[in-house]
Amino acid sequence: MRFESFIRDIPDFPKPGIIFKDITPLLMDAAAFDAALERMTKPYQTGSVDKIVAIESRGFIFGGAMARRLGCGLVLARKPGKLPADAIREEYTLEYGTNALEIHTDSIREDERVVIVDDLLATGGTALASIRLVERLKGNVVGLEFLIELDFLKGRERIRQYPVRSQLHY
Amino acid sequence: MRFESFIRDIPDFPKPGIIFKDITPLLMDAAAFDAALERMTKPYQTGSVDKIVAIESRGFIFGGAMARRLGCGLVLARKPGKLPADAIREEYTLEYGTNALEIHTDSIREDERVVIVDDLLATGGTALASIRLVERLKGNVVGLEFLIELDFLKGRERIRQYPVRSQLHY
Repeated sequence: MRFESFIRDIPDFPKPGIIFKDITPLLMDAAAFDAALERMTKPYQTGSVDKIVAIESRGFIFGGAMARRLGCGLVLARKPGKLPADAIREEYTLEYGTNALEIHTDSIREDERVVIVDDLLATGGTALASIRLVERLKGNVVGLEFLIELDFLKGRERIRQYPVRSQLHY
Repeated sequence: MRFESFIRDIPDFPKPGIIFKDITPLLMDAAAFDAALERMTKPYQTGSVDKIVAIESRGFIFGGAMARRLGCGLVLARKPGKLPADAIREEYTLEYGTNALEIHTDSIREDERVVIVDDLLATGGTALASIRLVERLKGNVVGLEFLIELDFLKGRERIRQYPVRSQLHY
């Protein structure tokens, strides 16, 4: 399965000069979406992962299905103010200003094995914030899975002490 | 499986007087999440659904996994400005003001059988907007699946000509 043919380039989105990688053609194709999930879960044995942490919002698309394939729980890493119960927060830097991710404090227990999932690895800001959230709850990040990695933004360098896998590189 | 025990009441969230139904304990529990997805896909045979339309953002959690169980494509109904390609929009009314959902124009073909998915049926505004989006693309809404329904908000009455199912009622 060559995933490249299911990713659509959208020039100047969300702003001029950016070429957005649109994953919706892949999601719409049952075989391509299935193959992507197969590849994203393949490194893990059923029972070897306790929690999938899915990053809002496109990470949710993959995270729910991956958690079911691996027979484990799903945890949401969300934008500030979205999680209703006690949560911890990690800020990360954007081109201008900062944003943050939150996770419920009861979502991960000590020594649980956690895989972090998102559609895209870009600068690594959200990935690093997610790792910190998991580790503050004493979870053990055993891997990070992305559909797409934008190699030129070098996000991988910021999280290089962790196993990082992406199905597509640009 | 009694799903009630996996739903947590959060008083005064997101604002005073609202009791928020927190689904994260259900998602964290592998067996409960699996059973919910089993029940939400049970009315449909593999091959009888062409597309799952998942409503941003908690609908994504269920939509991806349901599409894989049913062997069909996944389509995203998103907040305005999030979808990068040609899209159509439907507005819906909130307590104060309006919001809108968008869907890519190439996401559904004529006569495709579509199931719309979200975590919660409240007033029915987003459900109705999603139905209209699918029908503008000439898709055939064969069902709407929710984890939770807030019966007292009577959302079901606004979409009563469609098959609507919810796993939990409050």
